[in-house]
Amino acid sequence: MADPSLIDFILNPIGRVASSLTSTAEAPRQGDEGAPDAYLILDSAVQAGLHGTAVGDEIIVLTWLHEADRSILTVHPRGDLSRPEQGVFSTRSASRPNPIGLHRVRVLDIVEGRLHVSGLEAIDGTPIIDLKPVLGRIAER
Amino acid sequence: MADPSLIDFILNPIGRVASSLTSTAEAPRQGDEGAPDAYLILDSAVQAGLHGTAVGDEIIVLTWLHEADRSILTVHPRGDLSRPEQGVFSTRSASRPNPIGLHRVRVLDIVEGRLHVSGLEAIDGTPIIDLKPVLGRIAER
Repeated sequence: MADPSLIDFILNPIGRVASSLTSTAEAPRQGDEGAPDAYLILDSAVQAGLHGTAVGDEIIVLTWLHEADRSILTVHPRGDLSRPEQGVFSTRSASRPNPIGLHRVRVLDIVEGRLHVSGLEAIDGTPIIDLKPVLGRIAER
Repeated sequence: MADPSLIDFILNPIGRVASSLTSTAEAPRQGDEGAPDAYLILDSAVQAGLHGTAVGDEIIVLTWLHEADRSILTVHPRGDLSRPEQGVFSTRSASRPNPIGLHRVRVLDIVEGRLHVSGLEAIDGTPIIDLKPVLGRIAER
């Protein structure tokens, strides 16, 4: 049994990414840098949460970058050793204390709890932790 | 001791929000809907991660909305009972399986691990779990 104070901070994945990318070595650094289309396979227990999400929507996918090194606080941006080290909070490096991935994608198709989405750089099997709409103008919310 | 498979999914807060907002009832729904400026107080253990973050930067703050109900999958958007229920993944409701808040703010000042930021709707004491830069054009990354 986990410490109750920690239980509050445990993420419960809502699904997994299915992708042709199988290693971070082959994955582009961002979705708009040539990443393939992929699938978001949501658990049946949370599929009611998809009501209102439609083909054509731009959405924000939050993932848990499960292969990241959480002890790292500074990196060479984009792994380029010619660039000076920066703090991870000013980069999109997967290495960081809480390795949450933030991906903006477009929904191409939805069949039950399976979303086909455009350009996603997360590798096959990456846990999905949340989906959010891209916010439009205040009057349209 | 927590189950090892769960330890991988435990968030370690990197700091806390300090804000004049003390309850979700008084908080605006989004930062651009009249939220006050606030402070991000980072733990000393992660301050090296701030190297490269500068006054004037637009950043994305990820928080853990600790008062949210994680069992909720459908809501009336913006709490408006006249609107039909939608799945939480098509809304920005705090209620959702993993209540992560996503906030785009501007850095107004940085003094050691204390960032003064513009319009943030998270309440006082909200755990901070990550900071990320807003991505510019590919050529500028």
